[in-house]
Amino acid sequence: MDDGNRPRIAVIGAGHRGRGWAALALSRGWPVSLYDPESTLLQRAAREVGDRVRRLTDLGRADPLEAAGASASLIIGRSLLHAVGEAGLVLDAMPADLSAKQRSLEQIEQVAGREAILVSLTGTMHASSLSARLRRPERHVVAYALDPVEIVQLVEIIPGPHTDRTVTEQVRAWFAALDRLPVVLQREVVGNASGRILAAVWRECIDLVLEGVVDLADVDRVVSRGPAAALAVAGPNLMQVMGAGSQGIEYYLGEALQAHEAVWSRLASWHSLSADERHRLIRAIERTYHDEPAELRVQRDRFLARLLGALEDPRVESELDESWSPDEP
Amino acid sequence: MDDGNRPRIAVIGAGHRGRGWAALALSRGWPVSLYDPESTLLQRAAREVGDRVRRLTDLGRADPLEAAGASASLIIGRSLLHAVGEAGLVLDAMPADLSAKQRSLEQIEQVAGREAILVSLTGTMHASSLSARLRRPERHVVAYALDPVEIVQLVEIIPGPHTDRTVTEQVRAWFAALDRLPVVLQREVVGNASGRILAAVWRECIDLVLEGVVDLADVDRVVSRGPAAALAVAGPNLMQVMGAGSQGIEYYLGEALQAHEAVWSRLASWHSLSADERHRLIRAIERTYHDEPAELRVQRDRFLARLLGALEDPRVESELDESWSPDEP
Repeated sequence: MDDGNRPRIAVIGAGHRGRGWAALALSRGWPVSLYDPESTLLQRAAREVGDRVRRLTDLGRADPLEAAGASASLIIGRSLLHAVGEAGLVLDAMPADLSAKQRSLEQIEQVAGREAILVSLTGTMHASSLSARLRRPERHVVAYALDPVEIVQLVEIIPGPHTDRTVTEQVRAWFAALDRLPVVLQREVVGNASGRILAAVWRECIDLVLEGVVDLADVDRVVSRGPAAALAVAGPNLMQVMGAGSQGIEYYLGEALQAHEAVWSRLASWHSLSADERHRLIRAIERTYHDEPAELRVQRDRFLARLLGALEDPRVESELDESWSPDEP
Repeated sequence: MDDGNRPRIAVIGAGHRGRGWAALALSRGWPVSLYDPESTLLQRAAREVGDRVRRLTDLGRADPLEAAGASASLIIGRSLLHAVGEAGLVLDAMPADLSAKQRSLEQIEQVAGREAILVSLTGTMHASSLSARLRRPERHVVAYALDPVEIVQLVEIIPGPHTDRTVTEQVRAWFAALDRLPVVLQREVVGNASGRILAAVWRECIDLVLEGVVDLADVDRVVSRGPAAALAVAGPNLMQVMGAGSQGIEYYLGEALQAHEAVWSRLASWHSLSADERHRLIRAIERTYHDEPAELRVQRDRFLARLLGALEDPRVESELDESWSPDEP
């Protein structure tokens, strides 16, 4: 079925996310089949997967040798059975409709090998509900990566109450072999970790714009060139450690927490936008950004690839301990 | 007094932040004098400023020619009058004690030229209160940059109710000439924009750790390699535009906001930590990070400089419009 470190992968669902995961696995030379019950999607999806593999190579995010034959080797499933039958790892990339996904997972399980692992790729649903129709929920787990999934390295793995620990560990090992940075959550929480953080940032930014403190273009610049740049090289707790200096973390954190309490008590706390606020937000976004999303994504991918390269770059002045990388001191 | 584009700068306060601003201005060849009422600080501060200028050059964040004579040209003020008398721009980098800063600003105003602009560098106080003892509050404004101030490009400028608009514009122009990215807030808000965003991120991370969802080392990795990496190349609103694709922003945002409402309603909303929670947070930080803060900062600066270089790099494949940079499409 697979050689252990390189399972045969079936990607079920040929939308944007499924294509990204297919491109990622192919770019590392892993065997991939792609299937979608909407068979009309598949030819276009196969072309785009090929494009995305080439883009990964162009961006320096894939080994050209591994990626070379990749798009030719993509198998388009003629049926769910054809796609899944031999797979060691099945990635559920179907749209975010709970009951449709539950049925789809049930069908996948019926045609998959007993040892296959099913991973649902979603940031809005969890294994506890998705696995409702599965006979072997212990072989199912949820994973979540930000867009573009083939470039962003972080992948959160969220086991459900039934997920077998060895399944979680196997998925973690496979993702690490795909050059991802897997992080396992101890339990299911709405939004997972990265979705919550993004939601907190966006709410604060919307609030600052709607309250007239800063305009929308500027708030995006503030985030990118301020907090995000700083946090990309040191997470928020490491940032405190660096702030502490010789005072020691306990003394420093006493002061830092006190200063933060004043800010925390004033942060946005609303849970939804009124119709008028939503309208104003949409108008502000429309006034600010005019380029085609597809073009913006190409540019974003390029800068993101460079950013990741900069954080990894081993061509470092000699005094730097090469084993060190941001957030892993 | 100065040549307009390159004012003579007086930095008042020789602590960590004052040294950073002095290093930044010197590294661009601007004339700088440094003063602190605690005169014992000054010799050590002068050495560190020199070191930080050299580090900026080593990191590729300063022009070696401009920076070459910089540390030799730093003037150590023998008195407040000596430091401030000829300055066009006075940077108040005194510690965060409101009444002490008010008195210090009053003294600065008494010895400064009538045309001098006073900028208080702080993330926790605003011009409306800091300028209480000033005769010319219209020539005073607040500015806030994240640490390390000589590397992070974002500088928020926060005018007070009395600040003259031309003063704000002059400060913005000077900061831009120092290769900063200045963003002007329309009014004073607790924490300013970047402090609020950082506070929102940290609260969410503390919550995830204290609730046992993810451990502290992992949550820092999640932030750095997930949301922060993504947000460094595209602010949260631009991220939505890219997500929208061909659906159009209005349709997409309807869906995106609905999905976010489920997350917003579950985000952390506490304003302070209990003694026990604070204790657990400190222990978790101590268990995770053992390196010396000074070493961590050196490594952080290096990665941050590379990250900024990656986002600016003009050595781009030919098809990329070179005028484009993240968040400025």
